[in-house]
Amino acid sequence: MAENFGVIGGDKRQIALAESIAADGYNVYTFGFDLAPEIKGAKEVQLSDAALICDCIILPLPVTHDGCHLNAPFCSEQILLDHSFASFFRSKKVYGGMMDQLYQTSDIWDEIDTSDYNSREEFAIRNAGVTAEGSIEIAMREYPGALGKSKCLVAGYGRIGKALSWMLRGIGADVTVSARSQKDFAWIDVFGYHGVHTAKLCEKDRYDIVFNTVPALIFTRRVLSRIPSDTLMIELASAPGGIDCKAAEKLGIRVIQGPSLPGRAAPKAAGEIIKNTIYNMMEE
Amino acid sequence: MAENFGVIGGDKRQIALAESIAADGYNVYTFGFDLAPEIKGAKEVQLSDAALICDCIILPLPVTHDGCHLNAPFCSEQILLDHSFASFFRSKKVYGGMMDQLYQTSDIWDEIDTSDYNSREEFAIRNAGVTAEGSIEIAMREYPGALGKSKCLVAGYGRIGKALSWMLRGIGADVTVSARSQKDFAWIDVFGYHGVHTAKLCEKDRYDIVFNTVPALIFTRRVLSRIPSDTLMIELASAPGGIDCKAAEKLGIRVIQGPSLPGRAAPKAAGEIIKNTIYNMMEE
Amino acid sequence: MAENFGVIGGDKRQIALAESIAADGYNVYTFGFDLAPEIKGAKEVQLSDAALICDCIILPLPVTHDGCHLNAPFCSEQILLDHSFASFFRSKKVYGGMMDQLYQTSDIWDEIDTSDYNSREEFAIRNAGVTAEGSIEIAMREYPGALGKSKCLVAGYGRIGKALSWMLRGIGADVTVSARSQKDFAWIDVFGYHGVHTAKLCEKDRYDIVFNTVPALIFTRRVLSRIPSDTLMIELASAPGGIDCKAAEKLGIRVIQGPSLPGRAAPKAAGEIIKNTIYNMMEE
Amino acid sequence: MAENFGVIGGDKRQIALAESIAADGYNVYTFGFDLAPEIKGAKEVQLSDAALICDCIILPLPVTHDGCHLNAPFCSEQILLDHSFASFFRSKKVYGGMMDQLYQTSDIWDEIDTSDYNSREEFAIRNAGVTAEGSIEIAMREYPGALGKSKCLVAGYGRIGKALSWMLRGIGADVTVSARSQKDFAWIDVFGYHGVHTAKLCEKDRYDIVFNTVPALIFTRRVLSRIPSDTLMIELASAPGGIDCKAAEKLGIRVIQGPSLPGRAAPKAAGEIIKNTIYNMMEE
Repeated sequence: MAENFGVIGGDKRQIALAESIAADGYNVYTFGFDLAPEIKGAKEVQLSDAALICDCIILPLPVTHDGCHLNAPFCSEQILLDHSFASFFRSKKVYGGMMDQLYQTSDIWDEIDTSDYNSREEFAIRNAGVTAEGSIEIAMREYPGALGKSKCLVAGYGRIGKALSWMLRGIGADVTVSARSQKDFAWIDVFGYHGVHTAKLCEKDRYDIVFNTVPALIFTRRVLSRIPSDTLMIELASAPGGIDCKAAEKLGIRVIQGPSLPGRAAPKAAGEIIKNTIYNMMEE
Repeated sequence: MAENFGVIGGDKRQIALAESIAADGYNVYTFGFDLAPEIKGAKEVQLSDAALICDCIILPLPVTHDGCHLNAPFCSEQILLDHSFASFFRSKKVYGGMMDQLYQTSDIWDEIDTSDYNSREEFAIRNAGVTAEGSIEIAMREYPGALGKSKCLVAGYGRIGKALSWMLRGIGADVTVSARSQKDFAWIDVFGYHGVHTAKLCEKDRYDIVFNTVPALIFTRRVLSRIPSDTLMIELASAPGGIDCKAAEKLGIRVIQGPSLPGRAAPKAAGEIIKNTIYNMMEE
Repeated sequence: MAENFGVIGGDKRQIALAESIAADGYNVYTFGFDLAPEIKGAKEVQLSDAALICDCIILPLPVTHDGCHLNAPFCSEQILLDHSFASFFRSKKVYGGMMDQLYQTSDIWDEIDTSDYNSREEFAIRNAGVTAEGSIEIAMREYPGALGKSKCLVAGYGRIGKALSWMLRGIGADVTVSARSQKDFAWIDVFGYHGVHTAKLCEKDRYDIVFNTVPALIFTRRVLSRIPSDTLMIELASAPGGIDCKAAEKLGIRVIQGPSLPGRAAPKAAGEIIKNTIYNMMEE
Repeated sequence: MAENFGVIGGDKRQIALAESIAADGYNVYTFGFDLAPEIKGAKEVQLSDAALICDCIILPLPVTHDGCHLNAPFCSEQILLDHSFASFFRSKKVYGGMMDQLYQTSDIWDEIDTSDYNSREEFAIRNAGVTAEGSIEIAMREYPGALGKSKCLVAGYGRIGKALSWMLRGIGADVTVSARSQKDFAWIDVFGYHGVHTAKLCEKDRYDIVFNTVPALIFTRRVLSRIPSDTLMIELASAPGGIDCKAAEKLGIRVIQGPSLPGRAAPKAAGEIIKNTIYNMMEE
């Protein structure tokens, strides 16, 4: 394991990450957080010093929004991603999220030992857990009845669907999961949910709340026309999602956008997940 | 069962109640909702007409806030509680919540067949379920980590404590419940929670989130001083509650007030509960 | 707390109890177990020695089966309950289960500080947990389908009904609970079970397995006649139980008797429960 | 869908299967059950007649034990698997379990449309659910404490591990799951279990019950030597399993063999699973 970690840029998740690494007993140096509140246990330094001292460098998720500057909302200055930036990290171990755009900012990156924590399966699974929780919070806030007494449809049995249906059942909801494969239906049955084929969504069954996790248009105008207009729909798939929002609007069905990046609602949880993923990668 | 229900005054819960009774196939007449959106299936009438037509009259919870006027936030005029008001309901069956102040507004009430749904045990239990859900929503919103991965303390194993600890475990939290009686500890054990005696709160154990349901000062300055300052505390007991808020503030511990009347967060659920309680009373 | 415990007679539960107290660091002396395998950590002594050394004496549950002799199946001799037996325990603290018959064996007992652990509420609750588990074992063994995919009726929402319905839901079963009071129905609803009134048992609904916990004849011939003959019934109420077994037999419905004393199926669990109940009583 | 099903040979599972298909409204003809009790809704016929009438033929699991004769324990005669047997099924749709040995009994099988339900993923998943339940039954029977209050280790997070850990948590047990991949650890965390790396089994942690599902020797003499001798071990992996039984015996650790084919403990459940798998295959 490294002893000195440099956390360079990022949002509340990276702050939580820095504090959590420090709490584990490592030395943590940060750069790019001059506008942030105090980061417990970490030391704010210059980028050059961080690069000098630290053997392990952690970049944010995503590393950059625009392809030119580091994603560093807590920094009063823009940090340019160029040869000069890259050259700091020669001979370092660098971890970041969604690194592709970074690699295009300098050839030097080709020589650096980099890893993308965002591409790890365990990262995606744990984030799905946090997203599921955020979805339940939204449903509790928006649904005028009791979520725990409601009939819910979870469309899709991928990572988010698995975590969400488990939690919904845990608070007492009557959970139906839609899927396409017999393998998924078998698991849906083992875990005590009702199952419905995605091709037969809402044909006879009625739900109080529908959570969509499928990133393909499955709630078409035709399907939506069979859904009572007081159904609450929550879209969890990334844009453009699986619900025809215009059709829903015409039919008077409310569609709520799901939680954004887990980072916003649960930065501490998201920071922990990044940290644990990086620890896993270091041990491999 | 009655055939004609008069819903007289009240907030969103009574609107949900009126719609739900109508959906059950009964005739519903309302008075005191001229500022409200349309109440599906119900007919807005004059008070005299409601009294004439309906055999069952439903008053809000509480019937009155000030002892003089009906609790009717959706009514453009104030409705005075006097002999004239009372006289409308002679020979009717009248249901209301927290009726004591109403009885003092006119002797006529002594002759009327009234019942208080708020005093029913099943009403309190079902509301505890809704309050538990509201508390989880708050915790999800305010806690920066994942609630489902957190260590929670539920102080008190009354109605809310029972419902809340069950739900928390259902989403994966590590749940400790505090109690005083060996009977409660036995149930706590059967249902798979950890138990701690209320007199030994937070002596060695640490929690991410503390939910207090005990309406007596148990989180004194002394107890609070043993709690890490990044613990999130949620007060669910009615005022003045069980947490010394001033001491908490000095110690830097955040205390969030729990959900207000279930009516605000989940009016449809609350309306259903009132309706079902009234149905139960009618059948007895 | 006492330092020296005397465990006098009893079955496997008392053996488990003796071993568990010894494992807690106390001195344990036993009498009445010469036919038993080694009791770890305890010392087999004469009754007079046990009485001499120990400040706390633990008698079995029940203390006696016949009113004359100690319940001591692991003792090669019968131990008579008389003045002589009682006189050993003067000035001791004596704990036993179902002590009434013992008191009739000698006036000396009136002068002895005795307590009945069997009459404690927490003892009954924890035993209900063990009984619920034993019932599930029986259902799993006898039901040819998968219990976790079955439709179950739990008749009665007392201690066993509460624990059993919770466990059944936990393994995925579809659980209906019968009750009579609106209070019980409210809890049944909060915890996510279906509810049915005891007076309307099996009118329209069908179950794969019926667990009866009600010690009154509710499954009469008339009710049984509405139950499909391939339903499995498990009787958990103490004799004569709540199922008309003769009528069931005529109708071809299988009725299985539930687990006997928790002691048989889970002596270690039962011994722990006795121990913890006695510890609680000592601390009061 | 076919209208006429022929169920040819097999054990209690095929009997349950035949009854269940008949209950779905199809015609069911059986051969090879003259020693069995009545099969409700099915008609026992000659093999030639079954072949004549039925468009869909269902063979048992496994089709044969010895490679020469049909697996037909309820048949008073041995049914030889030869050209003559095969020729009955020309132009039929034939479903069976573990068909490889059958194909070697006659070239005719090359021309027949056959399918193996045993090779389907959903079949394996649903059987894992039944096996998990059978394992819980065994643990309840053999463990002298309460399973719901015990500390359990589930070694391996494959199909059985997933179903078993979910059920154990559902009845209140404290569940640790061992795995090797970070992906599995992420799921283990999402679902609220503790995780331990298979390479570090039982290093510090102690369990009351260990369920092994890993078909590779992971409980070596070395690992077993760290396990307290009163731990109950249940072997669920197929022979030779993952526990060094000889070493366990020397160390005084009890190892129980898990449930045999799901067919024995839960023939009705197993028959339903075969039926549903065949229905799925027919619809594809």
